[in-house]
Amino acid sequence: MNTNKIISNETNSNSPLGAGGTIAAISTAPGIGGIAVIRISGTKALSYINLIFRPINKALQLSTIEPHTVVHGNIVNTENEIIDNVLVTIFRAPHSYSGEDLVEISCHGSVYIQKKILQLIIDQGCSLAKPGEFTQRAFLNGKMDLSQAEAVADLIASDSAASHRMAMNQMRGGFSDELDLLRTRLLDFVSLVELELDFSEEDVEFADRSRLKELSAEIELLITKLSNSFSVGNALKNGIPVALVGETNVGKSTLLNYLLNEDKAIVSDIHGTTRDSIEDLVNLGGISFRFIDTAGIRNTKDKIESMGIERTYQKIEQASIVLWIVDCTQISEHIEWLTERIAKRAKGKKIILIFNKIDKIQEEEKEVLSQLFDQFEGERLYISAKNRINTKELEKVLIKSAQLPEIQPGDIIVNNIRHYEALQKALTAIQRVSDGLESGISGDFLSQDIRECMHFLGEITGQISNDEILGNIFGKFCIGK
Amino acid sequence: MNTNKIISNETNSNSPLGAGGTIAAISTAPGIGGIAVIRISGTKALSYINLIFRPINKALQLSTIEPHTVVHGNIVNTENEIIDNVLVTIFRAPHSYSGEDLVEISCHGSVYIQKKILQLIIDQGCSLAKPGEFTQRAFLNGKMDLSQAEAVADLIASDSAASHRMAMNQMRGGFSDELDLLRTRLLDFVSLVELELDFSEEDVEFADRSRLKELSAEIELLITKLSNSFSVGNALKNGIPVALVGETNVGKSTLLNYLLNEDKAIVSDIHGTTRDSIEDLVNLGGISFRFIDTAGIRNTKDKIESMGIERTYQKIEQASIVLWIVDCTQISEHIEWLTERIAKRAKGKKIILIFNKIDKIQEEEKEVLSQLFDQFEGERLYISAKNRINTKELEKVLIKSAQLPEIQPGDIIVNNIRHYEALQKALTAIQRVSDGLESGISGDFLSQDIRECMHFLGEITGQISNDEILGNIFGKFCIGK
Repeated sequence: MNTNKIISNETNSNSPLGAGGTIAAISTAPGIGGIAVIRISGTKALSYINLIFRPINKALQLSTIEPHTVVHGNIVNTENEIIDNVLVTIFRAPHSYSGEDLVEISCHGSVYIQKKILQLIIDQGCSLAKPGEFTQRAFLNGKMDLSQAEAVADLIASDSAASHRMAMNQMRGGFSDELDLLRTRLLDFVSLVELELDFSEEDVEFADRSRLKELSAEIELLITKLSNSFSVGNALKNGIPVALVGETNVGKSTLLNYLLNEDKAIVSDIHGTTRDSIEDLVNLGGISFRFIDTAGIRNTKDKIESMGIERTYQKIEQASIVLWIVDCTQISEHIEWLTERIAKRAKGKKIILIFNKIDKIQEEEKEVLSQLFDQFEGERLYISAKNRINTKELEKVLIKSAQLPEIQPGDIIVNNIRHYEALQKALTAIQRVSDGLESGISGDFLSQDIRECMHFLGEITGQISNDEILGNIFGKFCIGK
Repeated sequence: MNTNKIISNETNSNSPLGAGGTIAAISTAPGIGGIAVIRISGTKALSYINLIFRPINKALQLSTIEPHTVVHGNIVNTENEIIDNVLVTIFRAPHSYSGEDLVEISCHGSVYIQKKILQLIIDQGCSLAKPGEFTQRAFLNGKMDLSQAEAVADLIASDSAASHRMAMNQMRGGFSDELDLLRTRLLDFVSLVELELDFSEEDVEFADRSRLKELSAEIELLITKLSNSFSVGNALKNGIPVALVGETNVGKSTLLNYLLNEDKAIVSDIHGTTRDSIEDLVNLGGISFRFIDTAGIRNTKDKIESMGIERTYQKIEQASIVLWIVDCTQISEHIEWLTERIAKRAKGKKIILIFNKIDKIQEEEKEVLSQLFDQFEGERLYISAKNRINTKELEKVLIKSAQLPEIQPGDIIVNNIRHYEALQKALTAIQRVSDGLESGISGDFLSQDIRECMHFLGEITGQISNDEILGNIFGKFCIGK
């Protein structure tokens, strides 16, 4: 195929944001389908389509037809050969997805045709769209704020009712409204403080200090609440992290393979979306679990503190649920030591103690075994990963342990690490305000901290943004959106 | 994901053709994309969309808006929760692809959302579309004839300029026009003959026998021309068949691997299209080659006529080009015998004799080697498949040997085995007419043969069709087209 690589004459890779020319891309999923859609956006969208499109109704002029109207016709190449019979829809600025003039070509879903039509448009001088560039333009043209634009990518990647609902709520602006409300309150707050500064020589206090303390505490509470929702949001979006730990050769891999492969839809790598790596993500009972394998802890005392172990502990800390796997037939001499360590590093997490290879021991040995772990207070389960004994029970326990609240339409859940980090910084700033009020620091310091808090909240919705932030966000989109 | 399987309440799998209810399917390529399109077709298409779609402009009534218009709004579930923000396009019968009322929903390209929306429509009582059902309805509603409908599937599967152009010509009706012309001439012919029959007692001859002979010869020529184009059409559509033959251990597999893997786009299996198996299809210089491996011919005289050999010969017969591979270092004692056999079974085909492992022998041995094959008159090439000596040259020779005419816009090329078989039957019938005219058979026999010829031509365009033929054709389409 000569058209495997679309060659662009014009490059917009170095163009400043918002100053790009007209762009085009295939917007539907890659591969063969019944139909495919190619989008063109920008001031020249209509003139490009005019060059390659011939309406069946020859009396029609693209320049005069009503926007939001579908026109039937042929795409032709420079030799006037018909490349495809298509439907073309015209949207005019600002009433389009990107806020610019926008054309959608609905063609037959042959890969050859899709590429051929795109190449024809590019040959006219149009640029290939970068990942997420249509949405980026929608943001730059004020069609949506930054958190809504990010929700578009989340929506496209959503694979469960919960992740879909979170993205939809965010795209519809619930989160943005909440942040706007916070910023308005902060603005009221800072206005009072700054008014005082203007009259500082007169030593007046417009802002009642106890009222300011209340306000600061309220805002701190709101930000904390949003920030705290991240653990739920992240689990729903990226899967509940479950770490498998244990000494070497206890059957961790066998259990992991069982969990990952057995009759379950393993969510495969999704190209071009916001997730970098979602391997080992498994859906159990409608909940996504992300299983994290860890290096086996070695069964010799002098090696037990080796390099790999610290990494295992770090993984335990990332997890919400820890499966501590023990080999029934090979009880380690380090039980006490291990119990203490795991309990310490997995504090506040759900730990499930799993006795593996249960079919290899006698019933009466179970009692002895259990007593060895009497220091451990959590749930315990007797299984054989290899012979599928009690493994379904383990799945049930996992589902029960997940205990995720059901997301309701309208619920605001933070599920984006960028938002979470900005909220954390905003929280630190507002906490400084509270502390400052307590210790009676001067108004100009107060004002500075409040403005910093506003700044970080503004980063989320994009009132404050820069090319690097935008590049990071939209670079993870798929091309064509 | 609960929506992995779309559950349909209503089934139309047993409904007679053309009597199906309203159908829906995802029409874009499977997987995640920026956007996806879901289609609904049938008398209830508008009422189904009305149940789940809420225009942003609340004053809009779907029932009153202009057809071919795009409406922005939300898809909601039965609890009025927003599932997605979409664009809906309304087409009204007969001015739609299927000829029925048709609705296209352009949604965010999340797999979850695509399935969720489709499920919502199905839950209202709509049926899941079967493969090709939208196009089948287009055929049944007279929007296109059968060969044009088949061209839609070819167009979607097209992966080269040539296969695209053939499909496009066929879809635009060039082939149908040619067949209509033939049928018109046959109808004139048969009318004359049958008029005679009405007056048979009066022993008149309305139809001048020499004029009839001319007509018959002309039609025979036209059908032969169409029928002959199949070898080119089939090669362009399915790849030029190249058989690799030779004794065991001459390096056939190494050469095949080189041809299949080296820097070339191997066209992968295309699911749901008209091609059942396109493995080993490779694009060299813009031409598709289908490499056919054969069982190695054994180097012992008594085993040489074994089972597998006959299959190898059959594969030679299917090929257009035969690569006869010989191991320079191990010259068989059966050269003469082989030369004769291969020449016999590959009659009329391009045979290229390939001396492999050329780097393992001295320059002076080449001459001796060449003389051993002096009975063979075709092209010969010295290569090493393993060490890539002269392999590029082999590619060039293959491309040169392909000798496919370039398809021009408007050229009529038969590339469909069903059409070819019908043409062959039509040809047999018209040849019987010619013979009958020569031997002076009676008019009623003549009439019967002419009608049979017309019947087979009618099968191609679908004037003559039945459920089984249609089932075979549309069953190979992708769902959603």
